[in-house]
Amino acid sequence: MATIKDVALKAGVTVTTVSRVMNNRGYLSEKTKEKVHQAMEALDYHPSEVARSLAQKQTTLLGVIVPSLLHPYYNEVINALENHASLLGLKLLVCNAQRNAQKEAEYIDMLKANKVAGIILCTQSRNSVRSLINLPVVTLERSISPSVPAVLCDNEMGGRIAAEHLLSRGCKNLVMIQGGRSSEERVQGFTRTCEEDSVSFHVVHASKRQFHQLDYADLINTLFTDSPAIDGVFASSDVIAAQVIQICHKRGLCVPEDVKVIGFDDVDLARLLSPALSTIHQPIEELCAHAIQTIVRWEDTEKQSRTILPVHLVQRSST
Amino acid sequence: MATIKDVALKAGVTVTTVSRVMNNRGYLSEKTKEKVHQAMEALDYHPSEVARSLAQKQTTLLGVIVPSLLHPYYNEVINALENHASLLGLKLLVCNAQRNAQKEAEYIDMLKANKVAGIILCTQSRNSVRSLINLPVVTLERSISPSVPAVLCDNEMGGRIAAEHLLSRGCKNLVMIQGGRSSEERVQGFTRTCEEDSVSFHVVHASKRQFHQLDYADLINTLFTDSPAIDGVFASSDVIAAQVIQICHKRGLCVPEDVKVIGFDDVDLARLLSPALSTIHQPIEELCAHAIQTIVRWEDTEKQSRTILPVHLVQRSST
Repeated sequence: MATIKDVALKAGVTVTTVSRVMNNRGYLSEKTKEKVHQAMEALDYHPSEVARSLAQKQTTLLGVIVPSLLHPYYNEVINALENHASLLGLKLLVCNAQRNAQKEAEYIDMLKANKVAGIILCTQSRNSVRSLINLPVVTLERSISPSVPAVLCDNEMGGRIAAEHLLSRGCKNLVMIQGGRSSEERVQGFTRTCEEDSVSFHVVHASKRQFHQLDYADLINTLFTDSPAIDGVFASSDVIAAQVIQICHKRGLCVPEDVKVIGFDDVDLARLLSPALSTIHQPIEELCAHAIQTIVRWEDTEKQSRTILPVHLVQRSST
Repeated sequence: MATIKDVALKAGVTVTTVSRVMNNRGYLSEKTKEKVHQAMEALDYHPSEVARSLAQKQTTLLGVIVPSLLHPYYNEVINALENHASLLGLKLLVCNAQRNAQKEAEYIDMLKANKVAGIILCTQSRNSVRSLINLPVVTLERSISPSVPAVLCDNEMGGRIAAEHLLSRGCKNLVMIQGGRSSEERVQGFTRTCEEDSVSFHVVHASKRQFHQLDYADLINTLFTDSPAIDGVFASSDVIAAQVIQICHKRGLCVPEDVKVIGFDDVDLARLLSPALSTIHQPIEELCAHAIQTIVRWEDTEKQSRTILPVHLVQRSST
């Protein structure tokens, strides 16, 4: 592989001149610049970003730690982060903690050793807080400490909109299925709306195992066996809602005629289901753009900030 | 942030000794090692991987370039690559070329400048070949040049299995919907099997626009309007198959009673559909493990190799 010396030799200039051209520093004639660029091209020379970042003591790498790469929500998060990062010349190091606090801690160490510009944390573990001191960090749809800025969607509003929508579609017996993620506010929004309307409702919580395997079939089957009067289901993710539709189908219940189903997230899956799924749209693009801005403008960031972005209803055929 | 000098000072040894402990080189007493490790821990010192990689002239970063991060197939690829990479202590730099040859070329330059250990290419562009010389590169489910090793699944076999399965389930009028990806072999396998069985069939190709937007509704509607006798559909991806099921549903056609549908890929979406989708399982885990081994064992890799891994049928409720 060509070195800076090879480029200097080929261009007939000193190594210092090549370095000045690359960093665009000091006076340089157009002719010299052209000679150096031609030599770089001819030798297929790529100035080492490793060397640059060592000099600058920070890289243009951005770390993101997610709890899973199989859940469609995190795929859309990675997609949105990569889009926004690349617009700013930042590169994304993707780390999958697989819901393992030890793996998460190891990734944080690795990202620090790689001198990342910052970390976007989509994981839960509060153990990490100590190791994150002095590093630009933002949590996405998580809040792990008052000293770490968080970007969240308005989960309470989402729960309210979901309940209001099911009620406006004539449902009388509501249930919310709550997955393992940290969306207690969704439950509160749903619960408060049902209580205000004095409508019959209950909330079931998935086990950790069901959440980790993204398999809710047993839970949903038990639900319909125990409470055959259910006519409206709010699932705390589109993945759960997909399985509610499957099980209604198997039990001979029509969606939306017999049971109305609404999800949360508005991932691509929602529009691919039969019937297409009504859901609460999370502003994933905006959440990710805001998270990256928090890292990039770290000096100006209020470290105790919590930014909450609004959600809205996307009505499709399942309600 | 602590430096190597701080560690040396705290441990009461020289910087050279700290460096020798970190790199495990030369004679060192257990006592010295322990002193240095304790100082590193007390100071929360992380040896800079940037500095290390500069010394080694190569990093433990692995680049992956995908054409899209929204297609579920690439999500499962990223997930599998990250799993295998992390087992080997490699980190994944994820680049989304968004089906843009210019963006792809820029990412290749960026990855070279970051001295990645190698690149896994899931994109199409043949323009890239020249810029990839002297770099460990493997293409995944793509074949861009005889001089770049490729890891593929047996697409011809997949097309055959899909056609044979629809025939064995009693279908008489088959259609294959071909998305934009490079799976001409899938078409060949399907076509040859139908011809051998003298069964009525045709193949429709999606436009680039439909492929880029992952929206095949118009194509599928036209298909059923023009050919109402269709009773078996082979979609070249599970995403297309999901939309076939949706449109059958809207047209009052029952799946699998009136129309049998089979997909390709076996991404998570397949098992979440109603009815759950029969599909051809791509061995994504094995493809990714093999691609990473190709990079890691580059010295031993036959540069002109094409590795083709077998696929198999996963029967669910849609057939």
